[in-house]
Amino acid sequence: MSNFWTSLRGKHAADRERGSKGMENPGYCSGSFDGLHHPSDDDDDEMVDIAGATLDFSSTDDVPPLSSGVYEEHNGTSRTAGMNGSGPSRLVDPLEDPLPGVGTYEDFNTIDWVRENSKDRDRHREITNKSRQSTVALLHSISDAFSGWLLMLLVGLMSGALAGGIDISAHWMTDVKGGLCLRGFWFNHEHCCWLSNETTFQERDRCPQWQSWAELITGKSEGPFAYIVNYLMYIFWALMFSFLAVILVRAFAPYACGSGIPEIKTILSGFIIRGYLGKWTLIIKTITLVLAVSSGLSLGKEGPLVHVACCCANILCHLFTKYRKNEAKRREVLSAAAAVGVSVAFGAPIGGVLFSLEEVSYYFPLKTLWRSFFAALVAAFTLRSINPFGNSRLVLFYVEFHTPWHLVELAPFILLGIFGGLWGALFIKANIAWCRLRKTTCLGHYPVIEVLVVAALTALLSYPNSYTRMSGSELISELFNDCSLLDSSQLCGYKQPANTSDTGVDNSLADRPAGPGLCTALWQLALALVFKMMITVITFGMKVPSGLFIPSMAVGAITGRLLGVGTEQLAYYNHDAVIFKGWCSQGADCITPGLYAMVGAAACLGGVTRMTVSLVVIMFELTGGLEYIVPLMAATMTSKWVADAFGREGIYEAHIRLNGYPFLEPKEEFEHSSLAVDVMRPRRMDPTLAVLTQEGMTVGEVESLVESTHFSGFPVVVSSESQRLVGFVLRRDLLISIDNARKRQDGIVSASQVVFTEHTPPLPPDAPPPLRLRCIMDLSPFTVTDHTPMDITVDIFRKLGLRQCLVTHNGRLLGIITKKDILKHMAQMANRDPDSILFN
Amino acid sequence: MSNFWTSLRGKHAADRERGSKGMENPGYCSGSFDGLHHPSDDDDDEMVDIAGATLDFSSTDDVPPLSSGVYEEHNGTSRTAGMNGSGPSRLVDPLEDPLPGVGTYEDFNTIDWVRENSKDRDRHREITNKSRQSTVALLHSISDAFSGWLLMLLVGLMSGALAGGIDISAHWMTDVKGGLCLRGFWFNHEHCCWLSNETTFQERDRCPQWQSWAELITGKSEGPFAYIVNYLMYIFWALMFSFLAVILVRAFAPYACGSGIPEIKTILSGFIIRGYLGKWTLIIKTITLVLAVSSGLSLGKEGPLVHVACCCANILCHLFTKYRKNEAKRREVLSAAAAVGVSVAFGAPIGGVLFSLEEVSYYFPLKTLWRSFFAALVAAFTLRSINPFGNSRLVLFYVEFHTPWHLVELAPFILLGIFGGLWGALFIKANIAWCRLRKTTCLGHYPVIEVLVVAALTALLSYPNSYTRMSGSELISELFNDCSLLDSSQLCGYKQPANTSDTGVDNSLADRPAGPGLCTALWQLALALVFKMMITVITFGMKVPSGLFIPSMAVGAITGRLLGVGTEQLAYYNHDAVIFKGWCSQGADCITPGLYAMVGAAACLGGVTRMTVSLVVIMFELTGGLEYIVPLMAATMTSKWVADAFGREGIYEAHIRLNGYPFLEPKEEFEHSSLAVDVMRPRRMDPTLAVLTQEGMTVGEVESLVESTHFSGFPVVVSSESQRLVGFVLRRDLLISIDNARKRQDGIVSASQVVFTEHTPPLPPDAPPPLRLRCIMDLSPFTVTDHTPMDITVDIFRKLGLRQCLVTHNGRLLGIITKKDILKHMAQMANRDPDSILFN
Repeated sequence: MSNFWTSLRGKHAADRERGSKGMENPGYCSGSFDGLHHPSDDDDDEMVDIAGATLDFSSTDDVPPLSSGVYEEHNGTSRTAGMNGSGPSRLVDPLEDPLPGVGTYEDFNTIDWVRENSKDRDRHREITNKSRQSTVALLHSISDAFSGWLLMLLVGLMSGALAGGIDISAHWMTDVKGGLCLRGFWFNHEHCCWLSNETTFQERDRCPQWQSWAELITGKSEGPFAYIVNYLMYIFWALMFSFLAVILVRAFAPYACGSGIPEIKTILSGFIIRGYLGKWTLIIKTITLVLAVSSGLSLGKEGPLVHVACCCANILCHLFTKYRKNEAKRREVLSAAAAVGVSVAFGAPIGGVLFSLEEVSYYFPLKTLWRSFFAALVAAFTLRSINPFGNSRLVLFYVEFHTPWHLVELAPFILLGIFGGLWGALFIKANIAWCRLRKTTCLGHYPVIEVLVVAALTALLSYPNSYTRMSGSELISELFNDCSLLDSSQLCGYKQPANTSDTGVDNSLADRPAGPGLCTALWQLALALVFKMMITVITFGMKVPSGLFIPSMAVGAITGRLLGVGTEQLAYYNHDAVIFKGWCSQGADCITPGLYAMVGAAACLGGVTRMTVSLVVIMFELTGGLEYIVPLMAATMTSKWVADAFGREGIYEAHIRLNGYPFLEPKEEFEHSSLAVDVMRPRRMDPTLAVLTQEGMTVGEVESLVESTHFSGFPVVVSSESQRLVGFVLRRDLLISIDNARKRQDGIVSASQVVFTEHTPPLPPDAPPPLRLRCIMDLSPFTVTDHTPMDITVDIFRKLGLRQCLVTHNGRLLGIITKKDILKHMAQMANRDPDSILFN
Repeated sequence: MSNFWTSLRGKHAADRERGSKGMENPGYCSGSFDGLHHPSDDDDDEMVDIAGATLDFSSTDDVPPLSSGVYEEHNGTSRTAGMNGSGPSRLVDPLEDPLPGVGTYEDFNTIDWVRENSKDRDRHREITNKSRQSTVALLHSISDAFSGWLLMLLVGLMSGALAGGIDISAHWMTDVKGGLCLRGFWFNHEHCCWLSNETTFQERDRCPQWQSWAELITGKSEGPFAYIVNYLMYIFWALMFSFLAVILVRAFAPYACGSGIPEIKTILSGFIIRGYLGKWTLIIKTITLVLAVSSGLSLGKEGPLVHVACCCANILCHLFTKYRKNEAKRREVLSAAAAVGVSVAFGAPIGGVLFSLEEVSYYFPLKTLWRSFFAALVAAFTLRSINPFGNSRLVLFYVEFHTPWHLVELAPFILLGIFGGLWGALFIKANIAWCRLRKTTCLGHYPVIEVLVVAALTALLSYPNSYTRMSGSELISELFNDCSLLDSSQLCGYKQPANTSDTGVDNSLADRPAGPGLCTALWQLALALVFKMMITVITFGMKVPSGLFIPSMAVGAITGRLLGVGTEQLAYYNHDAVIFKGWCSQGADCITPGLYAMVGAAACLGGVTRMTVSLVVIMFELTGGLEYIVPLMAATMTSKWVADAFGREGIYEAHIRLNGYPFLEPKEEFEHSSLAVDVMRPRRMDPTLAVLTQEGMTVGEVESLVESTHFSGFPVVVSSESQRLVGFVLRRDLLISIDNARKRQDGIVSASQVVFTEHTPPLPPDAPPPLRLRCIMDLSPFTVTDHTPMDITVDIFRKLGLRQCLVTHNGRLLGIITKKDILKHMAQMANRDPDSILFN
């Protein structure tokens, strides 16, 4: 044994070195976990043969444990090793108590949902049975039942508090780029001037306490020199913040970069990425998110907030055995956490739940629906009590429109949908091309420089234009706003109609002709649109936390506002034309440009992410009016259809594919007519399948078989002639058990027979005692016949969450299909490189 | 062949007779489909052996077709018979073209989801392949892709229009019980008086054009005599309407009774009940729903509206081949229709979608989510344009509250939750006991008399109390309303504080002491509560369309309002007490009794149906304010927990169990540790499993095996010695194929060999030609091993929607598990009668 562990440690040390090399490899982030996983992983059915390595590995600083709990002693799990133990006919082997490590997973491997769920049901059954015996056990059973709700409460509270902190800090730091508050540097611009008594309501933004950098440095607030000083300081702070962000990510938590949603989708589908949701990722992502948002880069905080909420959930899971020890149960909590993330990002709890259901989650049982909703509500109310937006509103962009929309307006709304779809498709193609370039060329070797260059470029180009200078969410807020008469913003620079007295006071919100202010604003917006479209493509995927919601929405909101003002002017000057007659007479308020901005934002976000219902519900929660659902629905559906015509993948699926994660897209149908026999291994030319026989093999033979292959598991058959299937045993479990037996069990030598049968067969009197391994064998492996169409097989894999499935013909074992085989087959069918699938 | 069909027809005639006897059996409705299904159905694995009978049967008036399309010629389905045909190695047997009837289902049988989904993918694949060849085929492919959306649009329009019609008619007929409009008998009370110029706003209800029956008959509107005349007329109309309703249901569409939700849940889980969603059911349910609601019985129209929407969807499915021919695809549409039903019932599209997801649907893929949402929106807007509530509001109960709630108020809200849970549990127990009594005793033989007695009792007791005299939805509306100063309703009969001038005008809505009007109202409400609680128990389950939402909500709303007024008075008289201090000072408006009514309604409905998220979202859509989500959530969750402590089943699941439908509850975990071997048939004592061998059996042997057993399918094995599994063949397909071969194929006699292999084995030269049946054999039957724990097996059945599953041991066939076996096993484990499961 000691030999074994030494060799493990040795291997592990090498692995760690590789791992840390991986860290230094600049392509460590989104798109290249290659550096982190074992180089032999591109082989088929390979299982990394370093048991326990992750334990040590996970205690290093840079990769905190996703599942550090799973290595603890398993106590009381009656069916830990597979699903074979329980039931009346269970055979208890005193020598084969559950071993630590048996039934756990390697890093970058797929979990077996069926086994995990079954384990949890066993645990639950045991608690229920015990609860009938004593009061303590009953209390334990009750606390177990409510621990899920308690966990949800904690996740909601923690995520809400973190989101509040992020909002407040980002707000302050964004303002710091412009100046400082003399009253106290910790006040942001708005807060600083609120406290001031000297300012009127209209001049709230200009109070003596708030000083721009030019005023602080040169003493002057006006003139070209002051402008240049402010400009330079703006660029300086932008570079400073982005440098800090990328350095922190690089040094402490490489997993903290990007939006995190593609990885979370993959994790929720049953993949293990240790450390991706660890405490270091949480801390670094929280800090760098604030820095990245404040640096003025074209990115949002919504996607990263989902990641932050999932980190909170994962960390809090460690408080409860039930969730710490079960990968499937933990994923239920993570699904709820995704809902929490969107809930706090937009203040839209129902939309958040639907986002988790529609976009992120793989399995979403009803129980998770209830819990997600509860957690999302708790988080939203925690955030509201922190009140980061300072308006005691729950939502990020609160809007109130006064005018109903008219059926004719569906035409521009659908136009916006088409634009959104085109932009979404184009953005995905461009961004994926750029990310591929970064992955494959030397561009990817200098992530810090890349971030600094993009930040400098962004700051340089965005300062002169007031619509790009403000943060993304401020811009969207302004664009969504309906103009009132008192509104002093440039976007509301309409000419006052000369005959106000004629038309009366009632229609003070009536459509008016555009004034010079509005014209300037429109030009600036058009420039901002072009700039945003360009810069977002290269920003998303950089090595800083970066969300996609706000930039996409900004692009759509600008387009929508432009189209809205255009339609408004058209209606004003042609109110007698056929299409406007009857509903848009002179002096009436018929077009709301803010609504167009909102519809445009929904359309663009829909085109990029392919969300539909959740998007509409989020927008509905922002306005609170069911009336605007139809325009939003029309635009999002059009956008989805148009974008789908160019490619069915959303941005997150595209990134998953780029990274080669083993993700079986639940939305996509398997369209080909292959059979299981076409996909299974071994192929026609390959050597025959490596199998174990239920008796007759010695420990030495088994070990040499395991060593000579790289498969992660081996079928057990009655005899190699009959090939009738008995069960399935995992490589990892086999190695751990043999090693353990050699260490603890007397007389187990290489010549000992390995026995998988219920009763030990008669052995010659001088033979060494046999090694009985029935308890680590999965007695109920999934099988399909060779004639099963692949669409059914894919469906089974998706719905049950399988990792592998055995193929039989007339009761005889033929081969095996793993998730990776299916993904490779699908890639091949779509004329893509099957080797792009990296993990199993 | 002619022989066969004659015998079928003869059998069918007998069956029809049995069927119509079933109709006359008064227990034909909710709880007793026994009369309709074949008496031999209580046997295991039985399949009704009358092919084509249902076709004829379905053309009778009383049981309209659910799936009259499935018997049409199958054109172009390459894999009709099982899932074995497609793929490169497909063996085409020219003699075995798809036969009509092969691959369809009997009435009262469970569908095979895997097979249906696979069939649809085949169809889709064929269309996609063809679309590359010609423009016409491309257009066909596009129209096929959009047919789902078109269907949704039509379902939304039709259901919205029907719901509007039902609302308007029910409103008018409810008013007819009180009097008539002289201006035109088709005006309802409100409409009649709206048109009147002579009435002031406050006296809108009393206009000369609207005459009570006393005025019309005796000429007097006041006095005890007039009261008695009105009372008698009220009872007369109630009896009239309910008599008409029950007679129509009895005569034309027995399936139109009840709420329909339990049956729809069962149908959506994959059960076939022909005629349940047919055109006669639709017509009769629509008419009798209006009658039943107008008769003043304690029932609502929400559940039946779901049934009506599903009928619309099912009928409209016949317009599209894609949906007509595929049971699984049709169920996707029905899921969306359930959302439409709730959307039009409450004017809550999002809530409707979540209701379908949470409560009704079994499978809810994302595609269905989008389409449900679309259909629900269309329906809601159709309904709004019909404007049945006359207020251009989308929602049934529009409420607007002005006061935020305080944290302390959570205590009464949770109290309401506890009450709701207790009432829910009690109601379910009482109602099920009553329904069981009706089913088992002679009470069930007189459904018409039962309805008349209950209607008379309801009318007699409810007329004197104004809160029971008004319809359920009016009552709820009034209870939800916040009192304004001008409100003349009795519920707002507060004393005006003497010192109005002191407290100022601002707090005109401040808490005030209860006046005599309010006290009377409270007494009446308390009596109404007792009455409603009693009468609802015996009303739900009668042979008229009856929804449960409105009565449950009424019970909760009354309780809530009582508690709300109580709290308000407590706060008014004790505003210095610790708990009220700080947030409820004198003269402040701190308690909103209407909110309590709303929370109470949600709690009671939650207790009865166990809905959570959908309920909260429906309520949220009624108010439009996110602020009241927390009280609603607290109450519904408490209510669910309390009710679950008494029994985990909601009212719909309880009715499903009462009726013995084969429904595998997706919410309930399988808690026992049995193995597949404990559940499978044959049991240890039983004769061995009836199997076919892949060669060597003659047609005569096969026929005698089929005749001597009642199983719905037979496994095919290599040989009876090896018992290695080859495939599975359905009894129905086998019978149809043999019969067809005897008729069409030369030389097929009883001595012909039946061959399931790919290649015909060598036969003696004088042997008759073999009958090749490989194409009707399912080559990919699902198998589990004998050691598979039942929790995993149940999971597989649920997630994949299986009908049966074969059990193997070391590659040898051991037995079979059907859905019915699982349900029987579960019943046995829960100490219930396993024979209560009637169908398979």
